[in-house]
Amino acid sequence: VSDFDREWDELRARMREVLDLDAVVALLGWDEETYLPPAAHPDRGRQVALVEALRHRLLVAPRLGELLDEIGARPLDEERAAIVARLGRRRERAVRVPEPLVRALAEARSAALDAWGYAREELDFGLFAPRLRALLDLVRERAHALLDGSSDPYDALLDEHEPGLTRAALEPLLVGLCDGLRPLLAAVAEAAPAEPRPLAHLHAPVEAHARLSRRLLEQLGFDFARGRNDRSTHPFTLQCGPHDVRLTTRVSVDDPLLATLTAAHECGHALYDQGFAPAHLGTVLAEAPSIGMHEAQARLWENHVARRRVFWERWLPVVREEVGGALAGISVDEAHRHLNAVAPGPVRVQADELSYDLHVLVRYRLETALLDGDLPVEELPGAWRETLVATFDRAEVAPRDDLEGCLQDVHWALGELGYFPTYTVGNLYAAQLVAAFERAEGPLDAALAGGRFDRLLEWLRERVHRRGHLESAEDTIRRATGAALSAAPYLDYLRRKYAELYPTAAIR
Amino acid sequence: VSDFDREWDELRARMREVLDLDAVVALLGWDEETYLPPAAHPDRGRQVALVEALRHRLLVAPRLGELLDEIGARPLDEERAAIVARLGRRRERAVRVPEPLVRALAEARSAALDAWGYAREELDFGLFAPRLRALLDLVRERAHALLDGSSDPYDALLDEHEPGLTRAALEPLLVGLCDGLRPLLAAVAEAAPAEPRPLAHLHAPVEAHARLSRRLLEQLGFDFARGRNDRSTHPFTLQCGPHDVRLTTRVSVDDPLLATLTAAHECGHALYDQGFAPAHLGTVLAEAPSIGMHEAQARLWENHVARRRVFWERWLPVVREEVGGALAGISVDEAHRHLNAVAPGPVRVQADELSYDLHVLVRYRLETALLDGDLPVEELPGAWRETLVATFDRAEVAPRDDLEGCLQDVHWALGELGYFPTYTVGNLYAAQLVAAFERAEGPLDAALAGGRFDRLLEWLRERVHRRGHLESAEDTIRRATGAALSAAPYLDYLRRKYAELYPTAAIR
Repeated sequence: VSDFDREWDELRARMREVLDLDAVVALLGWDEETYLPPAAHPDRGRQVALVEALRHRLLVAPRLGELLDEIGARPLDEERAAIVARLGRRRERAVRVPEPLVRALAEARSAALDAWGYAREELDFGLFAPRLRALLDLVRERAHALLDGSSDPYDALLDEHEPGLTRAALEPLLVGLCDGLRPLLAAVAEAAPAEPRPLAHLHAPVEAHARLSRRLLEQLGFDFARGRNDRSTHPFTLQCGPHDVRLTTRVSVDDPLLATLTAAHECGHALYDQGFAPAHLGTVLAEAPSIGMHEAQARLWENHVARRRVFWERWLPVVREEVGGALAGISVDEAHRHLNAVAPGPVRVQADELSYDLHVLVRYRLETALLDGDLPVEELPGAWRETLVATFDRAEVAPRDDLEGCLQDVHWALGELGYFPTYTVGNLYAAQLVAAFERAEGPLDAALAGGRFDRLLEWLRERVHRRGHLESAEDTIRRATGAALSAAPYLDYLRRKYAELYPTAAIR
Repeated sequence: VSDFDREWDELRARMREVLDLDAVVALLGWDEETYLPPAAHPDRGRQVALVEALRHRLLVAPRLGELLDEIGARPLDEERAAIVARLGRRRERAVRVPEPLVRALAEARSAALDAWGYAREELDFGLFAPRLRALLDLVRERAHALLDGSSDPYDALLDEHEPGLTRAALEPLLVGLCDGLRPLLAAVAEAAPAEPRPLAHLHAPVEAHARLSRRLLEQLGFDFARGRNDRSTHPFTLQCGPHDVRLTTRVSVDDPLLATLTAAHECGHALYDQGFAPAHLGTVLAEAPSIGMHEAQARLWENHVARRRVFWERWLPVVREEVGGALAGISVDEAHRHLNAVAPGPVRVQADELSYDLHVLVRYRLETALLDGDLPVEELPGAWRETLVATFDRAEVAPRDDLEGCLQDVHWALGELGYFPTYTVGNLYAAQLVAAFERAEGPLDAALAGGRFDRLLEWLRERVHRRGHLESAEDTIRRATGAALSAAPYLDYLRRKYAELYPTAAIR
């Protein structure tokens, strides 16, 4: 064995330890949201913080730095070069954030998360505000520590989720997108029937939801030998190991049609995590190059597949079979319209496709103002309402209370600033990928006809999933679609869809 | 804050980290047996080994040694002295076993466990033998590293599970007990009806088992806010944190009467883990002083409560309610006889109370011979059969194959030598505790009448559970019962019970 081989093996072993702790942290989080007994929640926060601190120690170990330097100085093939680059970047970020700050953040996050919960229960933002302020201070400190090239701490936070994206690039993209969405939303809202959720009386028992969710995942291609489906209050997908992808579906969605969207969304995340190249498993290449690219997979299966008419031709009979009665009289067209109803409102997770990114812009404006120090935390409830109404240019979206307003999202309570924009990046990437698929393979309707999902999945596997983190998200989208991140395909898709659904709407 | 207070806080924080990693290891193990997707099992072994290695590093950290030395040199109250003693002992054992040996053991265990599984599937001991041999070498190496005072490596292994117990003390106790059990077993087997499991046709659907198990745990006093009940192939109880005690019940037990015993057994473990003093949580005092004392709680609820006639007066109607049909014609007496049927056979986990400890003696003889090097691994199948028949002095217990023989238990595949004797210690302690309860509080039948368990539980909580690891198991049993570990109360209990069940049996 050569010196190089020995060093390479040591690097791989150290990388694997970091990834194994990622898996442990993921499992602790999964359990927290699914099966953890109520009294054990405070202990779980401490356990996670400890494993994160131990992972931090493994990352900053000087020996890992030596190995990365020595190996990085040699000529390497594409895969090894990418491994050294990704792991090196991760180590570099860890080195910049000292362990006491890591622990202080974990504690402040845990306190803010609890306070957010109490504030929601008591409907009292004042219970959350001081904890959020303390957490923001630490997030700002961390962002400054991570600054690299840019002088804008928001860039450092964006870079964590969407490497390479900056405020300067994001803002015009987001504003431009919303300028396109606003008139579209107005036109559709005017032409569409007044009732926001015309089939909102639908409901199905828990067991029917569980069976439907299992059947959907099986049809879309989820591998149950390498994953699980459980239920939680908020749906999510976590990689609890290279052969262990766990997604949850929501306990609270009653409407089996809307529940299909949630399940398809999480399945999109899960298919990505199950689609990395087998040779990349156990390395930092078996991951998405950005959160936006991960979100794109979820949005693609949720919006471009599960909101599509052709999908419901095969799926509605399955839902009818499992749910029975309530759905007997509903046609494919009614289901399709129901799932694409447009009803601008104050709550992001209930938003239709035309409203969603306007919500993201609201959060972007507020979180940059919070981080920059331009918006004092105690003024958030009012600023939320004003920014929301101004962004939508519709008074009806004003929240009735903070539960529908600034207490609706958990992200800031977790210290996650710079995360919301990845939802929009995901929407854009998804539309770009579908447009590229159609250019190469013909209409998606034809590919999905007969309830077949394999052509679409295989196309995504080859162009996105199996690439993993061999290259950046930018390079991935460029190679897969021939273009950089852009809002045009998304706006096109929405215009075409809503023009078809509402022929009388004044859509330009 | 004084120097001492600062040092004490640091000690507590470091102790808590070790305990939090204990909880993480427990959760990883719980998940492995309940929800882990099939393809993820090899990854889980590696994740557990890593967390164990990190815990080892925390334990051997020189600073922890300094703190223990400095604090231990001062006058301390009972609780602090006990904390320093327990943590010091745990650290000392960790220091003696270097991390490479810890990792080699984890890997050898994982390989042996897999091989044990294959060997059982293929019914071929030869597939397991080389892995067991390799693991035994490491177990022996570890035992030698742990030697402390004694020159016998088996003492070092015993001491891990049952601190203070030695081969010299155990062997006469075990042999004496079995000398008492053998004639009792012979007398009952002669007097009892021939059919081994007279009600073996009973069965209940999975959902009924789940409901029954939940109702039983609620009645016995299990707190679901601080724990869970799930299903697994082999039942177990794990402390996944100070407020998180998880027990499983078996998926494969079909007979709702026998399933009650399993559930009561695990609930006994769980009640102990939920009964530590609140002030001890987050310290090394919130643990059993020995595995045998833990097992005693399980045996007590399984054998002295759930095998008792008075228990079934209230419980049989509940089982009938949940299971219906099959149980309609069964009387309390029939259920009671069914659960106390005596049928010596080759399989430990199916053993009646008169046979159980004879199985333990068999394993004790074989594992000491394996460790001493007197029994080559490849001769184990034959030695198993011979030792079993000789110990029972009954040819009918000979296993038909290795699945019923030397491949039946998982313990050695986990490197757990010196564990089996704790089952007997548990049986003896349980009988000692019940005898002491009856001396103090009157007949247990009266205390349990009307389906009340609180008097028994509170007595155990005060004398055993809340003491935790403030003192040794020996001191606990002496304080609770006035006597040291002894076989006499157990033999008395069995003689009385079987004389009542079979008045014609020649029981002396």
